[in-house]
Amino acid sequence: MNGAQALIRTLVNCGVDTCFMNPGTSEMHFVAALDDVPEMRAVLALFEGVATGAADGYARVSGRPAAVLLHLGPGLGNGLANLHNARRGHTPIVNIVGDHATYHQQYDAPLQSDIAAIASAVSGWVRSAGSSAAVAHDAAAAVHASLQRPGQVATLILPADVCWEEAPGPAEVVGGGFGPEEIDAATIDSAAALLRSGQRTGIFIGGALMRGDGLRLSQSIAQATGATLISETFPAIMDRGAGRPSVDRLAYLAEFAQMQLDGLENLIIVGAAHPVSFFAYPGKASDLVPDGCKVMHLTTENADLTATMAALADAVGADGSCSVQGSARPDRPTGDLNAQSLGAAIGALLPEGAIVADEGNTAGLFVPGSTAGCPPHEWMCLTGGSIGYGMPVATGAAVAAPDRRVLNLQADGSALYTVQSLWTQAREELDVTTVILNNSSYAVLNMELARVGAEPGPRALEMLDLTRPDIDFVSIAKGLGVPATRATTAEEFTEQLERALSEPGPNLVEAMLPATL
Amino acid sequence: MNGAQALIRTLVNCGVDTCFMNPGTSEMHFVAALDDVPEMRAVLALFEGVATGAADGYARVSGRPAAVLLHLGPGLGNGLANLHNARRGHTPIVNIVGDHATYHQQYDAPLQSDIAAIASAVSGWVRSAGSSAAVAHDAAAAVHASLQRPGQVATLILPADVCWEEAPGPAEVVGGGFGPEEIDAATIDSAAALLRSGQRTGIFIGGALMRGDGLRLSQSIAQATGATLISETFPAIMDRGAGRPSVDRLAYLAEFAQMQLDGLENLIIVGAAHPVSFFAYPGKASDLVPDGCKVMHLTTENADLTATMAALADAVGADGSCSVQGSARPDRPTGDLNAQSLGAAIGALLPEGAIVADEGNTAGLFVPGSTAGCPPHEWMCLTGGSIGYGMPVATGAAVAAPDRRVLNLQADGSALYTVQSLWTQAREELDVTTVILNNSSYAVLNMELARVGAEPGPRALEMLDLTRPDIDFVSIAKGLGVPATRATTAEEFTEQLERALSEPGPNLVEAMLPATL
Repeated sequence: MNGAQALIRTLVNCGVDTCFMNPGTSEMHFVAALDDVPEMRAVLALFEGVATGAADGYARVSGRPAAVLLHLGPGLGNGLANLHNARRGHTPIVNIVGDHATYHQQYDAPLQSDIAAIASAVSGWVRSAGSSAAVAHDAAAAVHASLQRPGQVATLILPADVCWEEAPGPAEVVGGGFGPEEIDAATIDSAAALLRSGQRTGIFIGGALMRGDGLRLSQSIAQATGATLISETFPAIMDRGAGRPSVDRLAYLAEFAQMQLDGLENLIIVGAAHPVSFFAYPGKASDLVPDGCKVMHLTTENADLTATMAALADAVGADGSCSVQGSARPDRPTGDLNAQSLGAAIGALLPEGAIVADEGNTAGLFVPGSTAGCPPHEWMCLTGGSIGYGMPVATGAAVAAPDRRVLNLQADGSALYTVQSLWTQAREELDVTTVILNNSSYAVLNMELARVGAEPGPRALEMLDLTRPDIDFVSIAKGLGVPATRATTAEEFTEQLERALSEPGPNLVEAMLPATL
Repeated sequence: MNGAQALIRTLVNCGVDTCFMNPGTSEMHFVAALDDVPEMRAVLALFEGVATGAADGYARVSGRPAAVLLHLGPGLGNGLANLHNARRGHTPIVNIVGDHATYHQQYDAPLQSDIAAIASAVSGWVRSAGSSAAVAHDAAAAVHASLQRPGQVATLILPADVCWEEAPGPAEVVGGGFGPEEIDAATIDSAAALLRSGQRTGIFIGGALMRGDGLRLSQSIAQATGATLISETFPAIMDRGAGRPSVDRLAYLAEFAQMQLDGLENLIIVGAAHPVSFFAYPGKASDLVPDGCKVMHLTTENADLTATMAALADAVGADGSCSVQGSARPDRPTGDLNAQSLGAAIGALLPEGAIVADEGNTAGLFVPGSTAGCPPHEWMCLTGGSIGYGMPVATGAAVAAPDRRVLNLQADGSALYTVQSLWTQAREELDVTTVILNNSSYAVLNMELARVGAEPGPRALEMLDLTRPDIDFVSIAKGLGVPATRATTAEEFTEQLERALSEPGPNLVEAMLPATL
């Protein structure tokens, strides 16, 4: 058994049985070892950002880390943007970066670079495997590290000779110790006192509280105490739809976010970061919490959020019940295809159990509202602001949930960063429907230009314009092996989306939208 | 005048008048300032790896740095692979990475990350602009740093408020001091003595010695002294063709490289890195210099290479003349389209003054030989081993040389990393002809699997296979606005290439090749 075989066997023993990869020469022994460990599913990506984003989507849906296999520093660089999103979404990922053989590194061969420096920007844990004797232990430690609550990217740098040298065998699983189990009773009492104080109090949630018991408990506490429940702007994954608790997300635009928080005297933060503006704007506040509002963090970052909320529910006498979203779908739209009719069509058709990877950006503005009363489904967001997340995350989600339909709402500009995802969807025959929201521009930047107070001339506006030439996503999809159609009216879009959602395998509908909402 | 305006005006004053960009919100004041400094040409890329690779190609051809504008850490990550190639090719680039406003950074907003850590892996110089008062000076310093011989990536991190706050005006150009001017006479004498010693001596050159006087002097010295002249494997750009000195490049495969160096008693290295194997292979040497061969570095890394070789030529009595490559073209091929007939067609048609961006990899094996006697042209190589360089570098080369035809020999697997380049070629109406060498596989890895001694099974081989689904580059090109045709015979390919090379603007020919040579 060589190091690569011991490594992969250990990953499987630790519950990591899927690896998204774009390997090169230094990873060839890892690749060859795939035939020795058939329990490991290997999924090829044509670009590293697809692999890292797919691992993110896989873990958001399954709750289990996937592995990623990348080729030295440049491969890691190509995967970095979606690892950044995973870092911000607290997604567990075992990120394996192949490296030159240990004895080769002294020669500074062309592909050598400082992998650890690059990895440090996105990883909670970084280790370079030093020997084939220890690499299986390193792998078990990487899985363990990735699962540290609330989840993180664990990067294992893997020199080629560590893979090809003999290894003693797989390592033991490292269990437990994923974060403190104790809940601080005094902090719970303080929060309960605030909630009972009669002051206007907000509960600001995120992470694991966006799903299942965590979401239900949060809403139950809010309703029992009259608090305002608001969630982080871009959860990694959240429960939505009819029969489930409904929570308002904090708006992306600081102006609207401040309106949501206005008048609060206390803000209890659980599982989310302090609410701040996504970007800075001249003369506007970065911190969105109103002046004079007291902020309380209910837990440390690595706490068990659901158990904490259960304790708080007990303390305030909330019984876990709460009102839920009613069932409602918009009518099938007719007439012009625009952001509103697009939203209505999706609301009319979203299947029960769908998983939505939402990178619709400005053109997707109406979709959350129009789908709120659809049958139960999950919703994934752009956690770290690094665009090009939607297609890869949709890909990984579909690998994790082969019995469900994944709907990727994909803005045109953002699609072009990781469009190679379509090929992996075709190869793996994944049930992903991609809707391209094609408004022929980086529309968000047109809005941001005004918001930052910049006065653009024609040369500036050209940098936000995606015409000259127009981008034809139907052709691109065809080139990557995914069937696609183009819709220019609401009726066409509705009909094409209905068919796409019902057919097995990947497909794409290009929605031609006006440049402005 | 705000900081962005002062910055861009300073760049232009320093000779940097082209900026390849993929901006976001934090760069909006930079973008708005483009209308105030019309001398700065802004070129939009749909993916950051296109922008960084284009800046690399631009400087390889023009000898002048371009600027790049990227969006925070994730944007830098997406651009990192081609910055790695620029680092290895010693290309001057002014790499500007937008960042959150200085006062916003304390809030750790979603897009924040350690930009300097990421940049350090590819940059010879990193600075964060601290104020609008100093940003123009920072820009002048960045240009100066980028031009430090032999050239490097200079990264300027640019907080948004530094752009939007008032600035006093542009800064002075920082000139001179790009590297030592003195040539060490004793070292020249030692090298001359070696060359006259009667021992078998090699001269191993790279960098600026691959062009013009540097190449001619190198060859003249070798021919005057009987030395063996060999160049680095992957020069950033080299002169080639009829009437020019011809130099053998060190082979990529270590086995062949060792044959080239076999028997040398001395190796004089000038402007190149010590010859080492690209990757490590079990049981094979990493250092390619034969045992017992003495290695002498003629210069420090930042020396004036051409002046040094002029001094050495004087010392050995070489008069600068040398034999040159004769004129020859292969016949137009007929029959099957394969690596040989593809090479013949390119040799039959390569226009005078063409600039070739060679990322043909295995399927391009015969092209260098078949084009050696073509009219004078330049050849660019994959300097750092990070694939996906060809299309962006071709794009930047065409921006730098609008009166010349750029030919991008592009392997299929590598094309998919930065295929968005085609859109920029279309928007800028660049005379780039892309030849996709489509052999439906990561063919180089099939070879490398055997060379590293790995024994692949079917699951491993699937990771190197680019079928299921087949990739249709004609459709992808069409989707990105570039006209394209597909060739399946030598006659078709020759005819399509001839037409493509004669038509203005970008185009693409997909050459369908067998999976094996």
